[in-house]
Amino acid sequence: MNTPSYLMGLIGEGVRPSLTPPMHEREATAQNLRFVYRPIDLLELKLPATAIGDLLSAGINLGFNAFNVTHPCKQLVLEYLDDIDPAAKRLGACNTVIIENGKLVGYNTDRSGFASALALELPDANLADVVLLGAGGAGSAVADALIGAGTQRLSIIDPQPQRAQALAEQVQHAQPADSTVEIRIGSAADGTQWIPQATGLVNASPIGMFSHPGLPVDVSLLHSEMWVADIVYRPAVTELIEQASALGCAVMPGKAMAVGQAADTFALVTGLVPDRNRMYAHLNELVELEQLQLKENV
Amino acid sequence: MNTPSYLMGLIGEGVRPSLTPPMHEREATAQNLRFVYRPIDLLELKLPATAIGDLLSAGINLGFNAFNVTHPCKQLVLEYLDDIDPAAKRLGACNTVIIENGKLVGYNTDRSGFASALALELPDANLADVVLLGAGGAGSAVADALIGAGTQRLSIIDPQPQRAQALAEQVQHAQPADSTVEIRIGSAADGTQWIPQATGLVNASPIGMFSHPGLPVDVSLLHSEMWVADIVYRPAVTELIEQASALGCAVMPGKAMAVGQAADTFALVTGLVPDRNRMYAHLNELVELEQLQLKENV
Repeated sequence: MNTPSYLMGLIGEGVRPSLTPPMHEREATAQNLRFVYRPIDLLELKLPATAIGDLLSAGINLGFNAFNVTHPCKQLVLEYLDDIDPAAKRLGACNTVIIENGKLVGYNTDRSGFASALALELPDANLADVVLLGAGGAGSAVADALIGAGTQRLSIIDPQPQRAQALAEQVQHAQPADSTVEIRIGSAADGTQWIPQATGLVNASPIGMFSHPGLPVDVSLLHSEMWVADIVYRPAVTELIEQASALGCAVMPGKAMAVGQAADTFALVTGLVPDRNRMYAHLNELVELEQLQLKENV
Repeated sequence: MNTPSYLMGLIGEGVRPSLTPPMHEREATAQNLRFVYRPIDLLELKLPATAIGDLLSAGINLGFNAFNVTHPCKQLVLEYLDDIDPAAKRLGACNTVIIENGKLVGYNTDRSGFASALALELPDANLADVVLLGAGGAGSAVADALIGAGTQRLSIIDPQPQRAQALAEQVQHAQPADSTVEIRIGSAADGTQWIPQATGLVNASPIGMFSHPGLPVDVSLLHSEMWVADIVYRPAVTELIEQASALGCAVMPGKAMAVGQAADTFALVTGLVPDRNRMYAHLNELVELEQLQLKENV
């Protein structure tokens, strides 16, 4: 009787301006689907991160199909899940919850989104020896995706050594006993040795965002034979991507992961294949629109 | 950044098969609006009627714009409202809750929906002397609408005298002190005297529904100068409407109120004018579709 329709929410702090909801809604419209995606901003609602369980239960009652979950709930959400995808379990973090027959099933499309973006955007990338900047939640998903894609040496650089150590242990722990994958951790100083030898580099730190402008690495360390990926997508082209591109590096800007994550979520929720190129175009439009609005508000 | 979009729910027992959600969704699609309307069935969820308050609070948090509320929550909902429309207050019943800046505002579009349907469908109806069959929730909304439209004598017939009495008192209480409106209550036997004199008759009892087939009144009491309205809309043409029409009465079938209610709700939620003729056509399609599905399930 009812046309198939989809109802999603994004739960986290400060999610009101996220472009993920309109990206899903625009792709759905292009596919003639009825799709409403609501930001559920814990700061606006004055709710603690621990409200995640109640919000998910309410979502079941009110007919939601799925949620994306972001900071600070990606770990907290685990205890409320009825089932969990192996990658999300391994990462100890879930950013996508699908409601199936009243049960909550967790996935991690940060991980799959980075992996699918890399495969599509840089299909010829040499993944042998990769430097990862940033060992937070995003860095963790990227590290797991890189190892899954065949990286043999992963060098994790983070200003907080204990965070880098924790990620290294997590990645190591996920390897079979006979694995030859090498994991190193270090500081920016170690990077000066490692980056010139690396085949690729990923920035998973916040540096380069509008709110954290600048470069996450000394670009004189880069070389033209390596590929460089960023996960920052506001601005659409970060200083890192701009300078790496000028040096002749193959580059993957942050919107690739943003689209990869949204596309993988969309596919999980609807069972349909999204058009990634169309989603890119929508994200570009949305980022431009946002910039115009910000300028008007100055 | 987000395209304007609307998220609604219908809270009540056994609401899963209601045609109200698809009616709203289809009109919204015709107007190029993003609109998802979820049935929230208390029986399926094994929730008591008193869960209405928690469901509304959850709806605020999860980004709902509005709810329709039906049996058994139309009275219970009142205590959770921040503000209430005068007609809903007078009736002591609310079937529509609009969420405005996190506040719950109650309306009664059963009442306004019957009133608008009557004005559009039977604009020349003589409302002077009307017999109302059924003094339940729907009868209450119809009674208030009739008095508002100018009925001078309202005769309420219900098999439960105390229910008819309660409605009579409610209607009387809503009149100004110098009102000349006459309210009578009675049984089917009284109807044999009243109906032949009446200018119009409304069936607000369940008799005539697929689940309660038959005639709510002895049709030999009807006369061709009177108008006859039904609020039952499954089937689309009840036995009462069919026989009254054959006698030459002006008739208003139940789908007029169903569409009136949905159209008034749609206007409250979106601030846009729905196309009532299109909503009629959609309701007809939906009722036919439902009948086909029921036959297939036999």
